[in-house]
Amino acid sequence: MKIRTAPALFLLLGTLGATAVSAPDEGMYPLSELSKLDLRAKGLQIAPEEIFATGKPSLIYAIVSVGATGSFVSPDGLFITNHHVAFGAVQAASTREHDYLTNGFLAGTRAEEIQARGMTARITESFRDVSADVLGVLHPGMALAERTRAIEKRIKEIVAETEKTQPGKRAEVSEMFLGRSYVLFVYTYLKDIRIVYVPPRSIGEFGGEIDNWMWPRHTGDFSFLRAYTAPDGTPADFSPANIPFRPRRFLKINPSGVNENDFVFLLGYPGRTYRHYTASYMAFEENLRMPYVVEWYGRQIALMENAGAHDPDVALKLASRMKSLANTMKNYQGKLKGMKRLALVEKKRGEEKAMQGYVEADPRLRAQYGSVLTDIDRTYGEMRKSFQGEMVLEYLRSGVNMFNFAWTALEASIETRKPDLERESPYMARNWDQTRQRLLLARRNYYEPVDRAVFKELLLRARRLEEPGRIGALDDLFRKHPSDQELDAYVARAYASTRLGDESYLQGLLKKSPDEIRAAGDPFVALADTLYPAYQDLRNRQKARKGALDPLFAQLGDLKEKYLGKNFIPDANSTLRLTYGRIRGYSPGDAVYYRPLTTLAGVLEKTTLEPPFNTPPRISELHKSRDFGRYALAALKDVPVCILYDADTTGGNSGSPVMNARGELVGVNFDRTYEATINDYAWSEDYSRSIAVDIRYVLWVAEKFSGADRLLEELGIPAKD
Amino acid sequence: MKIRTAPALFLLLGTLGATAVSAPDEGMYPLSELSKLDLRAKGLQIAPEEIFATGKPSLIYAIVSVGATGSFVSPDGLFITNHHVAFGAVQAASTREHDYLTNGFLAGTRAEEIQARGMTARITESFRDVSADVLGVLHPGMALAERTRAIEKRIKEIVAETEKTQPGKRAEVSEMFLGRSYVLFVYTYLKDIRIVYVPPRSIGEFGGEIDNWMWPRHTGDFSFLRAYTAPDGTPADFSPANIPFRPRRFLKINPSGVNENDFVFLLGYPGRTYRHYTASYMAFEENLRMPYVVEWYGRQIALMENAGAHDPDVALKLASRMKSLANTMKNYQGKLKGMKRLALVEKKRGEEKAMQGYVEADPRLRAQYGSVLTDIDRTYGEMRKSFQGEMVLEYLRSGVNMFNFAWTALEASIETRKPDLERESPYMARNWDQTRQRLLLARRNYYEPVDRAVFKELLLRARRLEEPGRIGALDDLFRKHPSDQELDAYVARAYASTRLGDESYLQGLLKKSPDEIRAAGDPFVALADTLYPAYQDLRNRQKARKGALDPLFAQLGDLKEKYLGKNFIPDANSTLRLTYGRIRGYSPGDAVYYRPLTTLAGVLEKTTLEPPFNTPPRISELHKSRDFGRYALAALKDVPVCILYDADTTGGNSGSPVMNARGELVGVNFDRTYEATINDYAWSEDYSRSIAVDIRYVLWVAEKFSGADRLLEELGIPAKD
Repeated sequence: MKIRTAPALFLLLGTLGATAVSAPDEGMYPLSELSKLDLRAKGLQIAPEEIFATGKPSLIYAIVSVGATGSFVSPDGLFITNHHVAFGAVQAASTREHDYLTNGFLAGTRAEEIQARGMTARITESFRDVSADVLGVLHPGMALAERTRAIEKRIKEIVAETEKTQPGKRAEVSEMFLGRSYVLFVYTYLKDIRIVYVPPRSIGEFGGEIDNWMWPRHTGDFSFLRAYTAPDGTPADFSPANIPFRPRRFLKINPSGVNENDFVFLLGYPGRTYRHYTASYMAFEENLRMPYVVEWYGRQIALMENAGAHDPDVALKLASRMKSLANTMKNYQGKLKGMKRLALVEKKRGEEKAMQGYVEADPRLRAQYGSVLTDIDRTYGEMRKSFQGEMVLEYLRSGVNMFNFAWTALEASIETRKPDLERESPYMARNWDQTRQRLLLARRNYYEPVDRAVFKELLLRARRLEEPGRIGALDDLFRKHPSDQELDAYVARAYASTRLGDESYLQGLLKKSPDEIRAAGDPFVALADTLYPAYQDLRNRQKARKGALDPLFAQLGDLKEKYLGKNFIPDANSTLRLTYGRIRGYSPGDAVYYRPLTTLAGVLEKTTLEPPFNTPPRISELHKSRDFGRYALAALKDVPVCILYDADTTGGNSGSPVMNARGELVGVNFDRTYEATINDYAWSEDYSRSIAVDIRYVLWVAEKFSGADRLLEELGIPAKD
Repeated sequence: MKIRTAPALFLLLGTLGATAVSAPDEGMYPLSELSKLDLRAKGLQIAPEEIFATGKPSLIYAIVSVGATGSFVSPDGLFITNHHVAFGAVQAASTREHDYLTNGFLAGTRAEEIQARGMTARITESFRDVSADVLGVLHPGMALAERTRAIEKRIKEIVAETEKTQPGKRAEVSEMFLGRSYVLFVYTYLKDIRIVYVPPRSIGEFGGEIDNWMWPRHTGDFSFLRAYTAPDGTPADFSPANIPFRPRRFLKINPSGVNENDFVFLLGYPGRTYRHYTASYMAFEENLRMPYVVEWYGRQIALMENAGAHDPDVALKLASRMKSLANTMKNYQGKLKGMKRLALVEKKRGEEKAMQGYVEADPRLRAQYGSVLTDIDRTYGEMRKSFQGEMVLEYLRSGVNMFNFAWTALEASIETRKPDLERESPYMARNWDQTRQRLLLARRNYYEPVDRAVFKELLLRARRLEEPGRIGALDDLFRKHPSDQELDAYVARAYASTRLGDESYLQGLLKKSPDEIRAAGDPFVALADTLYPAYQDLRNRQKARKGALDPLFAQLGDLKEKYLGKNFIPDANSTLRLTYGRIRGYSPGDAVYYRPLTTLAGVLEKTTLEPPFNTPPRISELHKSRDFGRYALAALKDVPVCILYDADTTGGNSGSPVMNARGELVGVNFDRTYEATINDYAWSEDYSRSIAVDIRYVLWVAEKFSGADRLLEELGIPAKD
């Protein structure tokens, strides 16, 4: 399989526009845009074709998507990513006796490498613009939800056609600009991933939630994993017979790292940004969605903290979910603070008002674009009305394990009986296996008291809902259990009588017909059945919204290009992107300056006896004896720990390789600064900074703390003394 | 009254030692030490005699002690200090209708100036070493408490003799080096102080407890007051007939302020430092006293917050006490953090061990000093045993208003019947008036529910005490009220039946004999009577401890001078001191640098709608229109708000004038950085930094925000535009 040649690229460029993009360092560039960037002028010292060129073993083939990002660092499928990216898999592999989360893990031999359950690795093989194909299915008379369904259907067809002609690969069509452009990506999916080396949590998660989204940072947030394939080199599920994957390209590590002002670039899979969205969207986020999520996640964390306070097994079970909730919560808190500080909505409104003035001044523009902004505003205005009820429905499904099991079983029984292309995506033949596996994996971290408390809390929230936005389907439940006490009893009975906690029972249920499932009489299935119309309603509402917004955003994009006389790059959407910048400090506020490199001395400054600052004593001893090996930076007289740079990243860039001007690995991206959480809505040269663990710290920990000689040898950096 | 001449100085130097002091910028220099400092070489551009010289109207005559410090800035007794120093007086003058705390206050004319209740201003007139005189009363056979009493008595006699020969002045003997040196200071006490101008709390206390003890800072922590005297120029109580005090010297304000690296010096009344204390003292502080106070103050603040949550009148009543508790609590938290970070106790122990080695190596030294350190350690070891009970006794008296009233009435009835020189200091004729006034002033902020809760909590703590350290005198009470409920009922009855809340009743009580007071049957008096022996015991224990420690510390001082081959300056003790340094930033931790000047832009960065960050909108408007008048610093293109410098300060230096190389006022000291809270135990050039409000901000707020034209004219800076 090859990267598509010029015609495909041309198509894509045609859609995205051909002029240069705006801000010098803003941007997560799709591969299709790279040729427009003069990276040599920015500081790149290798040919840009080294990064990506058709038919060449470019750097992009060293990049894997593992939810977040990783990069191959050896010919034998070894890749590096973040500790927090492997966290769930390490947690799943840990027991109280073998607590790899707490103690770290280093495989002595390949045979000792542990399966990283739930992890897959995706490699981008090719891409092609399919905008005309996708948008070709639309016609003027379509209702809004119908419009969305037609696009979804066409995309499914394109994917099916592609996967048919390229067996063993996975195809995905990604919407680049909302309602305007669609790109078909073809991926290799590796399914046998194993844990090779993770430092103890006291290094890999040093600073924990306190330091999360913060600079200065001192976290050794790295892990090494290995991808395996079937003996014939094709992707395969875990099997002892599998052999290491042979990537077309792997990154060379430069153990000398970088220094202040050095050029760096990153490749990775940034998740979502919303820079092309409107003030009304941002106001919706600022006033409704984010505050709701912050409050709700906070509640759930409190419930979990409470449950795990006196039981390490429970704490271990809940660790990954708590980490994920806390991470989002703090990110949103940072965003909310940033939005207020920058008066972002107000500023966006000002820009939109000016653009509206430009439209009004020209009758032709007015006819074409006059109502775009008000139409978008209206859609977000309507979303506000049903918001509270929708949150309850969403979190019932995503936050309550038992309800999620029941819901998935019921929906699967209905969806899997439809023709494949008409199913909702998780139930299509190509996805159903993974959906089912994820569901069963979620069972591992199920803990009834927390699940029950979350369920109860959501029912209470549902009961408090007022029109518009009430969930009428629950009226009967609340009539039957009017008091808190009776509702408590209902919840208690539900958990006492459900059998969904039994894996084989759940497995069996996933094969049954809707009527068989309903006949089983499970209380959660009964609730899922009661709510089924409400969820259908919600889905229709969401598709109709997308049907309304997509063409409006497409128009808005056209208009903005006209108005500003320039083109843009699309918001991040979990597809492969390049971003670049320099190692640079910043000022987070009046009279404060943050330098862009931290040191081992800083780790020890923060060290206490208590997590998350409980540095292993061995680290302190090594620092005391100044045993820095080859990893000290002369200017600091110390081992650099983390680095800061002004490249443009977001969630999904976790684990992205930070490369120097010669394309050598010098760091592993893992976070942004608190001020840069706002990146997703607005980027600024002043405060948008991302954070990597310095490769010198990675190697120093591996060599001096873990004695990982075999690993260092595989990395081409044999340990020496 | 004149400053004492050479012979007195000579005596003092003889005691303190004649060689130069150690660290270049450490030190709060007593006036007697100034001549040893080459301030010209440090950067001073005026003759050192301008600061202090016998018989000249030196700068020290511009300095007043108001608990903290202030400095005269006009010939008419106008002085500047901190907002937080005047806070209690402004609170006392405020009502819900005239809330000067919230809205600020500016007297339109002198007649409008408001009495600053509870405030006095003290000016240092002269000083003289009296060590030989004081220590002359000791003889070898004395018991420990007897030793302390003998010194106290001799000091009282010296004070009485001095005040007799200098009518209208107040004399005080201050212990400089523990057990080694004593200096007699003569002061003028001004008793009619009035509020002239305070900014609103949203400026004067901007950042509140969140920013307290922190840099970067953006607080306009200043206030202007005026001292008045009787028409004949002598100190007098408040009277409309009084006239402005005419200071011998006042400070010239330099409206151009300072810049980074500029030399500055401060004069003021730093309270207490403990740099000459031992590891055992510091361990006692770190392990026992400070954690106890942090916890206990936190509890009291929580009680008060709760009480004031829904009632602004109550919140206003409690504001000053809460502020003071929170201030100490955060200071201690900073100290505790610093002690851990620096491993201070361990370090001190190391130093002491090395010194002990030096002693052991020389038989003569061993004979003289061999047991000094272990003897000191033993005393602190014994203090640990009775610690918990002593805390309860202390906080009953200082934290429960009703008990304090009862206790003071009872103790006064006993003490005031003794010959004057035998009384405890607060009850001596020269102090009794002030003691009584303070007591009556405390009534203004009395709020029963909080007082009751604090009382109850202390009783519960007393009940939990175990031997050693139980308060046996309370056994009976607990026997009579064994359950929580019964104790509650006792507390409720006490508050229901006491009449101490009635001012005239309390006034009457303060004149009665012990028997009359006991006969009144007040429940709090009964409790005070029950506890009287326990308090006598406590006092004896404290005097015995001082009797033990004083000569040991005197020996330790001798020893240290021998061992290190240098002399020291005495710890701060609320007497007039000079300290100097430069405007300098610092690094509070790895990869962070703090610049030494903040700006108005920084105020607005922090501004929200909620206290303590609710900047008045007018300030934002002025900044938006860049209406900086003559107060902008070109390099910042903004008005500087606060400045940072490496001079050596502690509590009591609040309000100290920060002067430039020419002795002109450029700022008003109000705080230290969080890292510098540890100053009281150890000073470091790296992190010991103090904070002042920049005079440019003071003047800008006065001119642009408050339109205080008359004030500016009096300051010699007529408003212009």
